[in-house]
Amino acid sequence: MTTLPQSMFATVLLHDGFTGSPTGPYIDDAGDWLAEAELPVPEPGPGQVLIKLRAASVNPSDIHFIKGEYGQPRVKGAAAGFEGCGDVVATGKGAEALQDQRVAFVTGGSGAWAEYVLAPAIMCIPLRPEISDEDGAAQIVNPLTAMAMVDIARASGNAFVLSAATSQLGKLMCSLGHDLGLKPIALVRRPETVEALKELGAAEVLVTTHPNVVQDFSQICRELKPRVFLDAVVDQLSEQVFCAMPNQARWICYGKLSAEAPTLTQSGQLIFMGKQIEGFWLTNWVTSTPPEDQARVVAEVQARFADGRWKTDISERLSLKALVPNLASELQKSGGKVIITP
Amino acid sequence: MTTLPQSMFATVLLHDGFTGSPTGPYIDDAGDWLAEAELPVPEPGPGQVLIKLRAASVNPSDIHFIKGEYGQPRVKGAAAGFEGCGDVVATGKGAEALQDQRVAFVTGGSGAWAEYVLAPAIMCIPLRPEISDEDGAAQIVNPLTAMAMVDIARASGNAFVLSAATSQLGKLMCSLGHDLGLKPIALVRRPETVEALKELGAAEVLVTTHPNVVQDFSQICRELKPRVFLDAVVDQLSEQVFCAMPNQARWICYGKLSAEAPTLTQSGQLIFMGKQIEGFWLTNWVTSTPPEDQARVVAEVQARFADGRWKTDISERLSLKALVPNLASELQKSGGKVIITP
Repeated sequence: MTTLPQSMFATVLLHDGFTGSPTGPYIDDAGDWLAEAELPVPEPGPGQVLIKLRAASVNPSDIHFIKGEYGQPRVKGAAAGFEGCGDVVATGKGAEALQDQRVAFVTGGSGAWAEYVLAPAIMCIPLRPEISDEDGAAQIVNPLTAMAMVDIARASGNAFVLSAATSQLGKLMCSLGHDLGLKPIALVRRPETVEALKELGAAEVLVTTHPNVVQDFSQICRELKPRVFLDAVVDQLSEQVFCAMPNQARWICYGKLSAEAPTLTQSGQLIFMGKQIEGFWLTNWVTSTPPEDQARVVAEVQARFADGRWKTDISERLSLKALVPNLASELQKSGGKVIITP
Repeated sequence: MTTLPQSMFATVLLHDGFTGSPTGPYIDDAGDWLAEAELPVPEPGPGQVLIKLRAASVNPSDIHFIKGEYGQPRVKGAAAGFEGCGDVVATGKGAEALQDQRVAFVTGGSGAWAEYVLAPAIMCIPLRPEISDEDGAAQIVNPLTAMAMVDIARASGNAFVLSAATSQLGKLMCSLGHDLGLKPIALVRRPETVEALKELGAAEVLVTTHPNVVQDFSQICRELKPRVFLDAVVDQLSEQVFCAMPNQARWICYGKLSAEAPTLTQSGQLIFMGKQIEGFWLTNWVTSTPPEDQARVVAEVQARFADGRWKTDISERLSLKALVPNLASELQKSGGKVIITP
């Protein structure tokens, strides 16, 4: 067993609990929510492992979380960050099999934005050697979400709608949908992204700022009959999209990129057309999906990264010590993920 | 076979199709939507029966329909009215068994507010002699909806929430819920109705105009954990009620008594708490429920009316010829149904 240091550098939460007024996954200054700290290196308890970080990722859920608008409460002074990749350097009882393995992980609560990370063994996936540390750092949250949600879409027909299609998760879903013979209908904000998304596999791409977007979408609905809308935006346009979809359509919210609160203008869509509005959260999927189904999905995710069908686009790499001063400005760049290195 | 007249008095629709701007089941003047007409007495086609009207009822769905805000388009000049009770005086091929029977009926499209009504044989229920014509005229839409929705509630726990609890349908659901050992949590507008609803079977009654209604409801939720909200109002208070309910809650909209369009203020309720928003429409229930289950529910409805556990409270009786001039003012009275007689 490697000799471990007593303390480590970590990026920690400044606030406890939840906020009462969510404003979305955006920040002006990471220093409003995060601080640098020297913490004791934690010891793994039963079923846990200690991981020496190789790379961590920044997901929208991390930003919602540090601001207190995610599905679990913050603990002031604890390290932030949900997801990463690293080497298991110590194990608790029952987790010995992971010792010395390179793993992708998600933490039980938070803690990935630190030199050492505690994670439940069941949330660690040993990585195939072909997979880079950076792909490993974004191996679970987005890819499993993409797999699980496209599975839901596939059960309801040949076409599905997705918003924020240029996000990492959106791109994964476009290419996966295409590979499965489905027709992804992608909603994007910026016209310059249309061609790239079509190359990735989107059957149709609509620009949400175009004045005729709802009419154009309605026309596409008549042809393709999409019955699932995977929505990370959840604004008034989302509601119009939902209303334009055919009967039995499901509006599945999995993010909240817009600060606008949508109004339900047509209750008849729910009553007469059998439509419904619901949510998707990977944490609920993990607790409600049988382990063998999860293992199948995890293996498929790794296979797709290993052979290059999927990759993580990186917009910037930041060291842990450069994170707080630079995170806000780096997040404003589009086109890829911010990756954190120790 | 009785000799039938050539023509009949009917109350007919003034407009075609749908309106683009629903305003709810309220009218200032029935003459804006309905006219009196002399129509030919229709002839039953295959699977249809001709019914001589004894009594018809006025449901909120009728008012939504005449205004063009219901789940099916209006046909200008056709008789209005969905539900009633009468004697089968002629039958089409395959419907001969109903000849001369007194039946409760719902029409395929519309037509109950006329001296003679065409209905599909499968939408006719022969009535037990103990059931009055007036109870027979409100035997299907509200009672089956109550049965079907309380069934949904029962599958999700011991308590459920209902709005507009003083409506006929609300009262049926309170007493049925109580008889099944459930705890109905009733929302009402008027404080003076609280005691009567408790006597009918409501476990809790909350007055929606009370300033602390949401806090009081939250407290009740912690004790009773209702997971189904049967909502005929669908306004902003409904959204607050939904947000206060425990995880996995379902907001089931089945009417639209409020003209207010609710805003979804907390997408996290859908994403993290596994809640969903959906609708209920009896027409969809009829097409998706096996005939033997429907027959069981119909028999239970008649048994409840026959032995007095359920009854239809009548606010006013109007003859067909008095309908257009008086309907708007009679609908403003609370406490019961408007019944139409030939």
